[in-house]
Amino acid sequence: MYEGKIILLVCDGMADRQVKELGDKTPLEYAETPNMDELAEKGVTGLMDPIAPGVPPSSDTAHLAIFGYDPEKEYPGRGLFEAAGYGYKISDDEVAFRCNFSTVRKRGNELIVVDRRAGRISGSEAEALAKELQKIDEIDGVKVKFVHTLEHRGFLILKGEGLSANITDSDPHEIGAPVLESVPLESAVDFEDAQKTAQTVNKFVLQTFSVLNTHPINVERIKHGKLPANIVLPRGAGKRIKLENFEERWGMKPACVAAGPLYRGVAFELGFKLINVEGATGLPNTNIKGKFEAAVNALENYDFVFVHIKGTDNLSHSKDAKGKAEMISRIDNALPIIMDAVKEGVTFVLTADHTTPCSMGIHSGDPVPLLIVGPNVRRDFVKNFDEISVVRGGLHRIRGKELMNILLDVTHRAPEYGLRPSPKRVRYLPKIWNALKLNE
Amino acid sequence: MYEGKIILLVCDGMADRQVKELGDKTPLEYAETPNMDELAEKGVTGLMDPIAPGVPPSSDTAHLAIFGYDPEKEYPGRGLFEAAGYGYKISDDEVAFRCNFSTVRKRGNELIVVDRRAGRISGSEAEALAKELQKIDEIDGVKVKFVHTLEHRGFLILKGEGLSANITDSDPHEIGAPVLESVPLESAVDFEDAQKTAQTVNKFVLQTFSVLNTHPINVERIKHGKLPANIVLPRGAGKRIKLENFEERWGMKPACVAAGPLYRGVAFELGFKLINVEGATGLPNTNIKGKFEAAVNALENYDFVFVHIKGTDNLSHSKDAKGKAEMISRIDNALPIIMDAVKEGVTFVLTADHTTPCSMGIHSGDPVPLLIVGPNVRRDFVKNFDEISVVRGGLHRIRGKELMNILLDVTHRAPEYGLRPSPKRVRYLPKIWNALKLNE
Repeated sequence: MYEGKIILLVCDGMADRQVKELGDKTPLEYAETPNMDELAEKGVTGLMDPIAPGVPPSSDTAHLAIFGYDPEKEYPGRGLFEAAGYGYKISDDEVAFRCNFSTVRKRGNELIVVDRRAGRISGSEAEALAKELQKIDEIDGVKVKFVHTLEHRGFLILKGEGLSANITDSDPHEIGAPVLESVPLESAVDFEDAQKTAQTVNKFVLQTFSVLNTHPINVERIKHGKLPANIVLPRGAGKRIKLENFEERWGMKPACVAAGPLYRGVAFELGFKLINVEGATGLPNTNIKGKFEAAVNALENYDFVFVHIKGTDNLSHSKDAKGKAEMISRIDNALPIIMDAVKEGVTFVLTADHTTPCSMGIHSGDPVPLLIVGPNVRRDFVKNFDEISVVRGGLHRIRGKELMNILLDVTHRAPEYGLRPSPKRVRYLPKIWNALKLNE
Repeated sequence: MYEGKIILLVCDGMADRQVKELGDKTPLEYAETPNMDELAEKGVTGLMDPIAPGVPPSSDTAHLAIFGYDPEKEYPGRGLFEAAGYGYKISDDEVAFRCNFSTVRKRGNELIVVDRRAGRISGSEAEALAKELQKIDEIDGVKVKFVHTLEHRGFLILKGEGLSANITDSDPHEIGAPVLESVPLESAVDFEDAQKTAQTVNKFVLQTFSVLNTHPINVERIKHGKLPANIVLPRGAGKRIKLENFEERWGMKPACVAAGPLYRGVAFELGFKLINVEGATGLPNTNIKGKFEAAVNALENYDFVFVHIKGTDNLSHSKDAKGKAEMISRIDNALPIIMDAVKEGVTFVLTADHTTPCSMGIHSGDPVPLLIVGPNVRRDFVKNFDEISVVRGGLHRIRGKELMNILLDVTHRAPEYGLRPSPKRVRYLPKIWNALKLNE
């Protein structure tokens, strides 16, 4: 019934290294995962480097690669996806940035980052501060728009002629480091545009500090021993580039079941249908069963259903190995919903977008485990789904950008190399391969 | 104490194939290696193709790849490294060649190679012959300088305008073959320069024959039944290209513990500090413990310490499988010196630069075993370090040029892909990332 359909489940940052407090097991080894193990036994497994061996992926570049795009050549910058995740499709003359409300202190004429999330300021306080910042609506002829989203998060849009995304971040990504001057990337070919954009960003950052540092809300926060949200730090400049539609590229109608805005943003920009699920939060408390049910229901109208679970990554970033293992068990516990669909012919893929070792709390470059199960998969000997067991799997070690070809193959969509047109492509690209018409 | 520091031990040509006289084991399987096995159990293992599957690497290109350079694009030619190994940093208008004193005999108007090493002539005799050759100081306006180094070895420098390294070797690399006419490489874009350089080399080779063939030293050698050193055969033309400094590329201060000139030359050209060790010979009789102690001591001031053991390759070239296994056991026996540093947090890498099967006596394209052990490594199930056991290792099969990214990752230096600047890079590239300054 579901033959040829695919569910791809990405558990964000699920992969890890051995953890001492878990008896030298990884959270995935430690967790109770009878269903994942059953699927491993029925399917084929291996390791995947989302980008390349040893390269820690960002979440957006990892997902692009997994969806069969080459982040080396097809990466518009994170800001575009962040804005898209909130339904803001930037136009060609705009540059978008992910932003954090942060806490800084003066040291000489530098600003030192004390907390990158301003003591995890509440949404309502941040929203009130954002209202003040919206008075900054123009800098040197460039239109400025700051939008608050959730908690300490927001995005910035610059609009005008001659803007570039080829600039560095203001956010140093490290506590104790100074707020950085944004400058053109060394690789920027549009140097003058990049310089103008970087200068606008620098002025914006300084203006947010002068507006926020003495703002009554922050004065009040300090009085109550809280960290002030006294600056906004942009990062991940993004500008629209031509991104081929997922359906055009792969011949499958795609849908997305995700709550995290970045993942929704990536999927949205590639033309996925976004499916909303009650109780889906993008946090460890998310409604896992609801998401899996929504994914199976989506198979009715879609060929490729991407399901994203963010909580495993959040727990890794907060170095909570036991919590992470426990969340993996809860994911496993909900898997029978998808396994029923597997019995009806769906091809199911389980993986992570990157490793986030609980020992580090940030992404690492270790490869992630990968599992594919479905009617046309050549099974291997592996009977457990974890980072170590899959080393012996039949997929060996592949790159993220190779996954889609494998999925085309095991759903019998893969065109034979060298044939033109390739037989399967005919079905999916009718606009290219037209039938020859009989002369009347 | 050594967290984030790296020791890379390359045992030259250590990898092999099964040898009949060792009971169908490889020398590495046959050798007593309890320490290597203990490290394998604690670390992650795999196979590495220094260049590519099936491609036998030269020692210099293999090391370049292992240090994270792309020999396809960043290879100046061996001569540059040979000269550098003796402290001679060639300038932009020079071309350098590795040379051998060899034995040839006339056949018609060709010179046939009888021995590529002139019966392993002694250093003092070779030095005396080199003095004669130094009278050849100019050919067709090109300055010529021949330098004797060790035993039958030396190097040649040509200096002048319009010289090229894109030429073929005079040395046929085979006994019984004729000395070859040097000609421009088919790929040479600087054809005229290459032709001029090749002609200079050809004239030099013929002149060495006319000087050496009747030289009293050689007359004397023949009288005593020894092979005459009656020609000098250049090979491996090298010219300076821009090679990025290792520290700039990888953010680690590098040091080198090696006695073999070629390896010292590669390291020197990449900006490694060369550390000398008493009794280090570049031969099977080298002072292994002294080298390991020097490597551990170097951790005080350096982040990345490269240790090179050459003897394993020498024994492979002389097809001495038992001797090779015995030398591997001696290396293993000295490993506790490094294992103590591993206990204090150092990341240790053990590998070979290529396979040299004792059955062949020359380099082959078989992949080499690779082991990484350290505090941030995800362990696999492999418990033995040899070519066959590591097939099931967690690293699977990587390319030489991928190793450095993996080492950045397991020492927590790897920048997150897509971030600009990436967090760790801030520390290493201060010249790009400036602090934003407050307006006064």
